[in-house]
Amino acid sequence: MKKISLSESREFNPKHFSRFLLHDSPWFRVLNFNLAAGQIFPVHSHPSEGQLTIHVVEGEGAFLAENDAEIPAVTGDILVSEINEPHGVKASTDMRVVVTIAPPF
Amino acid sequence: MKKISLSESREFNPKHFSRFLLHDSPWFRVLNFNLAAGQIFPVHSHPSEGQLTIHVVEGEGAFLAENDAEIPAVTGDILVSEINEPHGVKASTDMRVVVTIAPPF
Repeated sequence: MKKISLSESREFNPKHFSRFLLHDSPWFRVLNFNLAAGQIFPVHSHPSEGQLTIHVVEGEGAFLAENDAEIPAVTGDILVSEINEPHGVKASTDMRVVVTIAPPF
Repeated sequence: MKKISLSESREFNPKHFSRFLLHDSPWFRVLNFNLAAGQIFPVHSHPSEGQLTIHVVEGEGAFLAENDAEIPAVTGDILVSEINEPHGVKASTDMRVVVTIAPPF
C-alpha cells in the first residue's frame, strides 16, 4: 500500500509536456502528464493488448483520436482506449492527465 | 474508445455511499464511489491477485487500512493497494473517489 500525491508532480515545462511515472507493477502503470496550454501529446498507439484510461484532473482541451478526430475533454472526463488504438491529448489550458495502462507493455 | 464524464455520476445519498460502475473489461474495472460527509466505505479485501487504485477526485477524508490505520486523503491523492490487502475510505467532507481494479475479480 502506498499513497501518491498528484500535488507533488504539478510541474509544467514551456518546451514540452512533462511526464511522471507514478506507479509501475505487473498489473498496471500509472503516469501523470502535464501539458501547458497549447501543448499536444501526439496521437500514437502501441501494438499491445490491453486498455488504458486518460483521466483529466485539471484544465481542459481535447482527447485526440485517429483521422484528426477531437473529443472535448474537461476536468473529470475519462477516456477509455485500447492500447493499440490511436489516442492523444491536446491542451487548451494548462492541463493535467493521469494515465493508467493495464497491463503495462 | 469511449468517454466517461464524472460529472454524470455526482450523486450523494444520505443513507449510504453511492456506487457507479463506469467501465468493465477483461483488463480493468473502473468505479466511482461518492461518500457524503461522515460516510465510510468499510475496510475490506478480496482473495484475488492484482492491484487497485483509489483516486480522490473531490473532497477529503482518509484511506483506511488494517488495524484501524488511517492515511489522510485529499483531492489528488491516489492510494495503490493489493486487491487482497485491507483497504477502505472515510469521508470527512463530501468525497468522490475513482477506483480502478486490475484485473477485475
